[in-house]
Amino acid sequence: MNTKRIRRNTIMFKNSPKIIGNYSVVGEKEGNGPLSVFFHEILHNDLFGESSYEKAERKILQHSIYKAIEKANLTTKQIDAIVAGDLMNQIISSSFAARAFDIPFLGLYGACSTMAESLIIGSCLIDGMYCENVACATGSHFSSVEKQFRYPLELGNQRPPFAQWTVTGAGCSVLSLKGRGPVVKSATFGKVTDYGIVDPNNMGAAMAPAACQTIIHHLEDTNKKLDDFDLIVTGDLGKLGSEILRDLMEHNGHKLGQNYCDCGQMIFSNTQRTFQGGSGAGCSATVFNSFIMKKLRSGEINNCLFIATGALLSPLSSQQGDSIPGIAHAVYLEKEVE
Amino acid sequence: MNTKRIRRNTIMFKNSPKIIGNYSVVGEKEGNGPLSVFFHEILHNDLFGESSYEKAERKILQHSIYKAIEKANLTTKQIDAIVAGDLMNQIISSSFAARAFDIPFLGLYGACSTMAESLIIGSCLIDGMYCENVACATGSHFSSVEKQFRYPLELGNQRPPFAQWTVTGAGCSVLSLKGRGPVVKSATFGKVTDYGIVDPNNMGAAMAPAACQTIIHHLEDTNKKLDDFDLIVTGDLGKLGSEILRDLMEHNGHKLGQNYCDCGQMIFSNTQRTFQGGSGAGCSATVFNSFIMKKLRSGEINNCLFIATGALLSPLSSQQGDSIPGIAHAVYLEKEVE
Repeated sequence: MNTKRIRRNTIMFKNSPKIIGNYSVVGEKEGNGPLSVFFHEILHNDLFGESSYEKAERKILQHSIYKAIEKANLTTKQIDAIVAGDLMNQIISSSFAARAFDIPFLGLYGACSTMAESLIIGSCLIDGMYCENVACATGSHFSSVEKQFRYPLELGNQRPPFAQWTVTGAGCSVLSLKGRGPVVKSATFGKVTDYGIVDPNNMGAAMAPAACQTIIHHLEDTNKKLDDFDLIVTGDLGKLGSEILRDLMEHNGHKLGQNYCDCGQMIFSNTQRTFQGGSGAGCSATVFNSFIMKKLRSGEINNCLFIATGALLSPLSSQQGDSIPGIAHAVYLEKEVE
Repeated sequence: MNTKRIRRNTIMFKNSPKIIGNYSVVGEKEGNGPLSVFFHEILHNDLFGESSYEKAERKILQHSIYKAIEKANLTTKQIDAIVAGDLMNQIISSSFAARAFDIPFLGLYGACSTMAESLIIGSCLIDGMYCENVACATGSHFSSVEKQFRYPLELGNQRPPFAQWTVTGAGCSVLSLKGRGPVVKSATFGKVTDYGIVDPNNMGAAMAPAACQTIIHHLEDTNKKLDDFDLIVTGDLGKLGSEILRDLMEHNGHKLGQNYCDCGQMIFSNTQRTFQGGSGAGCSATVFNSFIMKKLRSGEINNCLFIATGALLSPLSSQQGDSIPGIAHAVYLEKEVE
């Protein structure tokens, strides 16, 4: 059988699904960081006019979907599916955001890997011609995630040095076969990996082995070398996690060079006291839909391997003594050829 | 553009993805119900040898995936993706179950609609030739879900008359283009609907409008009538929810007849004191992978419209005063033609 899969983990998109519209919206702290010029919108109040951080997260996500559809020069009636997920229990941010649209909804959970997971499923729906236009989205909110996974901010807990700072923000990409934009060429599915990390404040270490595995699968499946990419971007390994990834890759015979960076490491500056950098589903979603998309659209880079990383823990699994499994999904994009 | 989508909400699978293996495993109470002869395996200890109900739920799901792959006469090495989700926070049952396999994992959250959502995404992956074999799975556990969504059993809370009983069990379907089995012909994506139901003990009422909308979309998109189906099965509306669905459908000019039934209503008998019947992601997953699959495989029925229904609430959204949105995804199957 002639599938579009090369080897086991990578699939090829023959019909060139394109990102014809994208949008990123971030909170004030992210807007004060090094990537501020790339974001489409910076909020000055992280409650966004809502009565709770959870409702703000939902509204930010909903807003990014609406604006990405607008950027694609489409109306909501032309979108065939919203493919989205988030970090909240039972992904309420995505479900309630989708409630605002009269559009079919496929809910995902891939923790901070959700942006890549939604792009993979969305690209299959577009490339396979099951849909004409699909919105892929995710986001997170610092204050709701701290409450959900760690402690409510009101407790004033100290942050350990390995901690990362959950990004407040959301990003959405609209995929289509018609229109103009960077092309999703291939994707490598991630597997759940577990190296026995048990500290929920050290997510980078839990996710780095998954990123390493997925990148190596992508290289093997496509017969490429690390130098073939203008940009290799992981989701939210942070500073420590990125160093671990560099070590793991080198140990496997692939030395990551200057073309490698991490969304979590880029989004905050050292003076912003976020320790290891940014994290959260909104981290890779906002950087992908701003920095990466702008560089691909402008032609500053010709291609990019985007690897969003997720830590598949729950407070409950940590309380019951489980370690933290990681996952990483990769999407390979090229700038559109005239 | 010639897409495989007919109208907005329904897609057609031209390459006939087939369910070549399936498995259902249930708890003791479910095994004492009217469908006992259909289930592949009935547990006599709902901890399944584990130290917590959450770990038992994970193991049941993992077991169903492993056994369904075996039923499909495949090895785990031949499975290209596991597409799964569950009701636990951050879908830990699915993520940790997937950790046991060296197989790419796509995590979903569709609450109790997950069986249909996973079949839709799995069918797209197979029909679009992105994968050769995909395992679609979900499950739930009465004791873990009560703790997660309502109260721990130890509190001994009374159950209100509108309540349903979360099914302990898991089901898995293995999809492929090769091999024999019932064929997934088309699928209708669900939209998030909300009729303002706020009682988390009355899920049937929250989900019935979503089921009604999806069934009507399917009929409109495929130019079919309710009589064209040998079986129309909703996921877990329960007794009250099914009555509401009958009313809503009749109000919309479609009178559901004898060919309609609900997994939640079927899985327990009146003497089992479950009030409105079964619920949970495991409810439709176990009934689909036993009762429905056996009837399609034996030729007792020629076709079936399976509509899994989900209530997209979280304890947190209820605590913050939100109503309960519902969603329903439909999959249309036919028995294999010789």
